[in-house]
Amino acid sequence: MPDTATPGVAPIALDAMGGDHAPDEIVAGAVQAVRQHGIPIVLVGSPRPVYEALSRHDATAEIPIVRAEEVLKMDEGALASLRRPRSSIAVACHLVRRGDASAVVSAGSTAGIVATGKLRLRSQQGVLRPAIAVALPTRPTPSVLLDAGANAEVKPEMLVQFAHLGSAYAETALDIEKPRVGLLTIGSEPEKGNKLVRRAHELLSAASGLDFAGNVEGHDLLTKVADVIVTDGFTGNVALKTIEGSVRYAFTELRETIEESRAARLGGLLQRRRLRELHRRLDPEEHGGAVLLGLNGTVVIAHGASRAQGVSAACVLAARISRQGVVARIGERLTAAHRPHRLWRSSAPGTHGTDAPV
Amino acid sequence: MPDTATPGVAPIALDAMGGDHAPDEIVAGAVQAVRQHGIPIVLVGSPRPVYEALSRHDATAEIPIVRAEEVLKMDEGALASLRRPRSSIAVACHLVRRGDASAVVSAGSTAGIVATGKLRLRSQQGVLRPAIAVALPTRPTPSVLLDAGANAEVKPEMLVQFAHLGSAYAETALDIEKPRVGLLTIGSEPEKGNKLVRRAHELLSAASGLDFAGNVEGHDLLTKVADVIVTDGFTGNVALKTIEGSVRYAFTELRETIEESRAARLGGLLQRRRLRELHRRLDPEEHGGAVLLGLNGTVVIAHGASRAQGVSAACVLAARISRQGVVARIGERLTAAHRPHRLWRSSAPGTHGTDAPV
Repeated sequence: MPDTATPGVAPIALDAMGGDHAPDEIVAGAVQAVRQHGIPIVLVGSPRPVYEALSRHDATAEIPIVRAEEVLKMDEGALASLRRPRSSIAVACHLVRRGDASAVVSAGSTAGIVATGKLRLRSQQGVLRPAIAVALPTRPTPSVLLDAGANAEVKPEMLVQFAHLGSAYAETALDIEKPRVGLLTIGSEPEKGNKLVRRAHELLSAASGLDFAGNVEGHDLLTKVADVIVTDGFTGNVALKTIEGSVRYAFTELRETIEESRAARLGGLLQRRRLRELHRRLDPEEHGGAVLLGLNGTVVIAHGASRAQGVSAACVLAARISRQGVVARIGERLTAAHRPHRLWRSSAPGTHGTDAPV
Repeated sequence: MPDTATPGVAPIALDAMGGDHAPDEIVAGAVQAVRQHGIPIVLVGSPRPVYEALSRHDATAEIPIVRAEEVLKMDEGALASLRRPRSSIAVACHLVRRGDASAVVSAGSTAGIVATGKLRLRSQQGVLRPAIAVALPTRPTPSVLLDAGANAEVKPEMLVQFAHLGSAYAETALDIEKPRVGLLTIGSEPEKGNKLVRRAHELLSAASGLDFAGNVEGHDLLTKVADVIVTDGFTGNVALKTIEGSVRYAFTELRETIEESRAARLGGLLQRRRLRELHRRLDPEEHGGAVLLGLNGTVVIAHGASRAQGVSAACVLAARISRQGVVARIGERLTAAHRPHRLWRSSAPGTHGTDAPV
């Protein structure tokens, strides 16, 4: 049942060539996004295989294709994006830049998407470094972790900016009022951690427009002690993948435990449906992916292993983010943070509109 | 049933004053270690409360007390260890130094234990920095992660040493022949990661006496792709706490899922015992704690929240490590690694004896 369709909204530019299962699963995800969620999609990639995949869903009339001659391979790094100005991800960015698409979605190589996005969409004014934000499955609302891998080396002032990027994301896409910001480190006292984190702690404590809640540790990532958790891209990526690995590990151990005994197996049968639901909620595929914040346009990075369901979820996420005006909200926050007198503290409720996508 | 008692073995010096539940749970853990595992213990701390706690177990005749006038509080950092030469942890180290104890066990502040251990036991010859190693619950054998928090800032050559420390631990305490070493980073290719990791990758690739298996990522920590995983103490501590938090999270979610439906609740009852067993295996309390490697003596750091069971497990671990001669094995490895001609590759099987504790 289409519930998010808005007439006249620019489509999502979906990179048909990125990901382990491109183009077939990407196209299947596009069909699902259109038919189940009413999200307009344009597929960017090599016309023939994409058209053939669309035919198998009888969807050639529903989803247009934009030609891109080149493909950024999964193992190609940042430099390749310079050498391939007509890659599917570069063309998708170009569509957003021209206003012909509202957001980019790709399941391609993260390094390639980040490099291409920075080159083709450019950073927003005042943004030192775009960062990758992921929504962790905390309750009642998700927590935003960033940077999850765009910047392996950062400076303390970048962590303060990440706090603004993440707060803007939490306020708009996740509807969290006055998000609390935590700094990921290895002890709760301000003097704990490494040089980067100690200096960032000072800057965050003094920053205006942020609700800084202090240090958080690895075991706090899923306990909702903060709405936004900032860290460098190296630590953030290790932490994110450790969460994924640990949850997968706990479920595997659990399944084996269930299968070991007959009585327990009976119990397991009774629970199978609920376990599946839980697993789905924790599965990164289902979250829709990571968001590259700080560019002049919305870019969603789907998991490289995404199948149709994950691709569709990424398109839903991209449509929501673009509709909620995260880009504009980041602009407002950074402008306010740089005002010389720093009178601004935080937005009055309701003042940040939900600006429509281009 | 005592299974590890050896006549004439020096006792474990157990810090009675460190930890959230000291001295009562520490003393209870000591009693358990002595009675259930036959491990000789000497309790170090303030005589009166320790004696009173021992009385409640009718154990005053079984476990001697060594007086320590001062206590290193949980919130005291590294500097306090200089100001408190008669703290319970300092006195415990002194016992090992004098040969009156075979190992130190403490559930006190990690920073305090590391600083005191370095000051009182000194680093082994050739060790740049002692590191904290933890055994992750992989199968069939545990994996060793280090540094888990002793050194927030490290240099690339320290990561190579950590590989030797961890390999010595894996070879002796965990009985793993020719341990494979992985480098924790954010991509599998050698050029991925930050400056520290890229340089460490080069050094590890060229190092003799190590079986370097290349880069590993956060999701590999529990999949046994390597026997030893090296990283800086900041990333390692975040990763370790993230594992603990994620596993706890998965279990909480699971329990709620089970309790949500009546049919599933029935299933849950059937499984309760097996789940408890699984949870126990994943519980850091049960692993016995972290080991501070690279000092002239064995130091085991129990979880600060340890209760009797965790304290007892830490004593069992300390006795095993001390018996297996990890300290001597580290000495052999570092000597071999620094031989000018680097002819040495790896030990022939069976050449590293299980030297008895002092």
